[in-house]
Amino acid sequence: MTDHGTHLDQMRAQAPLVHNITNYVAMNIMANVLLAVGASPAMVHARQEVAEFAGLAQALTVNIGTADPDWVEAMALAAQVMTQAGRPWVLDPVGVGATRFRQDACARLVDLGPSIIRGNASEILALAGTAAAGRGADAADSVAAAQEAALALARRSGAVVAVSGPEDFVTDGQQSFHVANGHPMMPRITALGCSLNGVIAAFAVAAPALPATASALAYYGLAGEQAGARSEGPGGFQPAFLDALYGMTASALDAGAKVRAA
Amino acid sequence: MTDHGTHLDQMRAQAPLVHNITNYVAMNIMANVLLAVGASPAMVHARQEVAEFAGLAQALTVNIGTADPDWVEAMALAAQVMTQAGRPWVLDPVGVGATRFRQDACARLVDLGPSIIRGNASEILALAGTAAAGRGADAADSVAAAQEAALALARRSGAVVAVSGPEDFVTDGQQSFHVANGHPMMPRITALGCSLNGVIAAFAVAAPALPATASALAYYGLAGEQAGARSEGPGGFQPAFLDALYGMTASALDAGAKVRAA
Amino acid sequence: MTDHGTHLDQMRAQAPLVHNITNYVAMNIMANVLLAVGASPAMVHARQEVAEFAGLAQALTVNIGTADPDWVEAMALAAQVMTQAGRPWVLDPVGVGATRFRQDACARLVDLGPSIIRGNASEILALAGTAAAGRGADAADSVAAAQEAALALARRSGAVVAVSGPEDFVTDGQQSFHVANGHPMMPRITALGCSLNGVIAAFAVAAPALPATASALAYYGLAGEQAGARSEGPGGFQPAFLDALYGMTASALDAGAKVRAA
Repeated sequence: MTDHGTHLDQMRAQAPLVHNITNYVAMNIMANVLLAVGASPAMVHARQEVAEFAGLAQALTVNIGTADPDWVEAMALAAQVMTQAGRPWVLDPVGVGATRFRQDACARLVDLGPSIIRGNASEILALAGTAAAGRGADAADSVAAAQEAALALARRSGAVVAVSGPEDFVTDGQQSFHVANGHPMMPRITALGCSLNGVIAAFAVAAPALPATASALAYYGLAGEQAGARSEGPGGFQPAFLDALYGMTASALDAGAKVRAA
Repeated sequence: MTDHGTHLDQMRAQAPLVHNITNYVAMNIMANVLLAVGASPAMVHARQEVAEFAGLAQALTVNIGTADPDWVEAMALAAQVMTQAGRPWVLDPVGVGATRFRQDACARLVDLGPSIIRGNASEILALAGTAAAGRGADAADSVAAAQEAALALARRSGAVVAVSGPEDFVTDGQQSFHVANGHPMMPRITALGCSLNGVIAAFAVAAPALPATASALAYYGLAGEQAGARSEGPGGFQPAFLDALYGMTASALDAGAKVRAA
Repeated sequence: MTDHGTHLDQMRAQAPLVHNITNYVAMNIMANVLLAVGASPAMVHARQEVAEFAGLAQALTVNIGTADPDWVEAMALAAQVMTQAGRPWVLDPVGVGATRFRQDACARLVDLGPSIIRGNASEILALAGTAAAGRGADAADSVAAAQEAALALARRSGAVVAVSGPEDFVTDGQQSFHVANGHPMMPRITALGCSLNGVIAAFAVAAPALPATASALAYYGLAGEQAGARSEGPGGFQPAFLDALYGMTASALDAGAKVRAA
């Protein structure tokens, strides 16, 4: 894959409206990430308007991090709109292994046909039905351990599945890629994974889900590398990361992307 | 108008308690903005206490960004307290043009007599009943295109109406001002408009709504200019902006304010 | 007390999962604080899963800042799990003096046996049943004025009680300490007190509540001193503070802690 910069430029040219039904922790940083990359974020969840609003959006992300039954209902309503309209939507199964409520919510959402499922290794293992050691939002399993689960989940669900970690793995069940961009400080800033969902969704408006996801992962990880080089801890990392997302050029992305076929 | 610095000093001397019923995206940055300017923020929304709490506050802001029917009910309860007490409150009709739910919520809140209505051009056009091209929180219309709508809305509602944009327009339906302070990076940071509502509310505790709003807009925009000069992207902009709000003196505000009668 | 550095290292070695049911304003910064200190945060509140999730956590914090009756119910469910399991949990009675709803919620939560209660002087006075001048989250009373109330509350509730202020006071009703670390900029950044609850909870996993709380207060205040020395306003303070929490060593904490027996 060598068209990452093209995907970035296409996304910015479209400046897609990305509708997000996400957790309370992520909302602010996710909106700032989407504005920094050049997309237009909106957070809307009330059942009285969520389907109507989804009809205006080019893409959707749903994230069960702080969900309750009302929010899951809103996610389902919006997801149905996107699936029926053939527009991309991303599912983030935060902490799915932790409780029965999360397992049920994710099972329901997977059945609605997400375009992309992104989680850490523990979450993808849990979602694929394999016993996982997850606790909260942190991964206790390695990406490599989740590759088979990701392939099986992709084949069963029809979604592109992305496993985030030191080296990401992304697959549609047939073709797979490893993305080696990233920085060890990234897990020390909350909701960067959640925010990535929005970038993936924005990229998937103008490109097919698999290459869009791989390009978004490379872009995000490369911005993390740049931010890591310019900061001394997680506090300074966050503004440097937003600036790196904002300042990234297509040619810099093509030069720095570390994506290889699996 | 030449008393912007006086308005700033009066606001800081009072350090008003500003009660905010706002969206999830804005809550943290709005509280930090209010602390930086020298006011005291509180976010309280439960129907069981919202009217009682409003009775303790000097000013109120309501923002429908992530509202649902329960939150709109809370906004109405608190707004009634402020209107009856003769205390200022600000309505931000986020994305009002996007859904029927938002239109109904805003119609109800406008009827409760806000002191100030602040939105972008698309929101003011939609609220005034003119077809608008809004999508989510981003404006698709120019400020100039919304001036007539702002005047009509001000006359009909009795509120001061402020239209945010590259050059702001603020009117009470009789007198109007343009405020040319601001920086192109500001729309790239989420919830800066939402947070501005709190600053306007704080200024309106000690000064009449129209000059208070004009001074708050100039102060906010001038802090944005200073932050833009000190940062390279939206990540660095945010801390620089809070520092600029915090460090602004009355004389610097008077020297830098770009407010002219319309 | 001279084992603050040891408490920090023990906490980091455990990297405890801290379950937080907190207010919307605090969620993001609290998660970032917990990640910066080396703990693992999770925000979970739905009644359908909150007890099950609490069973996975090493510690809990509850904070009524933006609570409604459903959230208070969730707090009670999770608190009961922790009390029954003998695991530490922290109660933050935000603005308890402001409304009857808050007083009732706090009375119920205190009865469930928190390990630690942390608030500002006005909140501790109100919780102890003394008339207080609190308004919102800001303290109108001095720490010294709240010492007797803290002692009484500690003896009545069985909790360690910490009063935050320019000089903190912490007591279990028998032994008491003053902690003089901190920086005047800290009250100008929203939710730093809320976020401190998580650090106290994390420290209390590996050490008894009283020394754990004193060490956490010293660590937090010392990081604030370092951040204050490196920043010019509340905007720059926040990233510098996260970096200071992240970079603090046990020996630096032991050298800088200002804890003395009362």
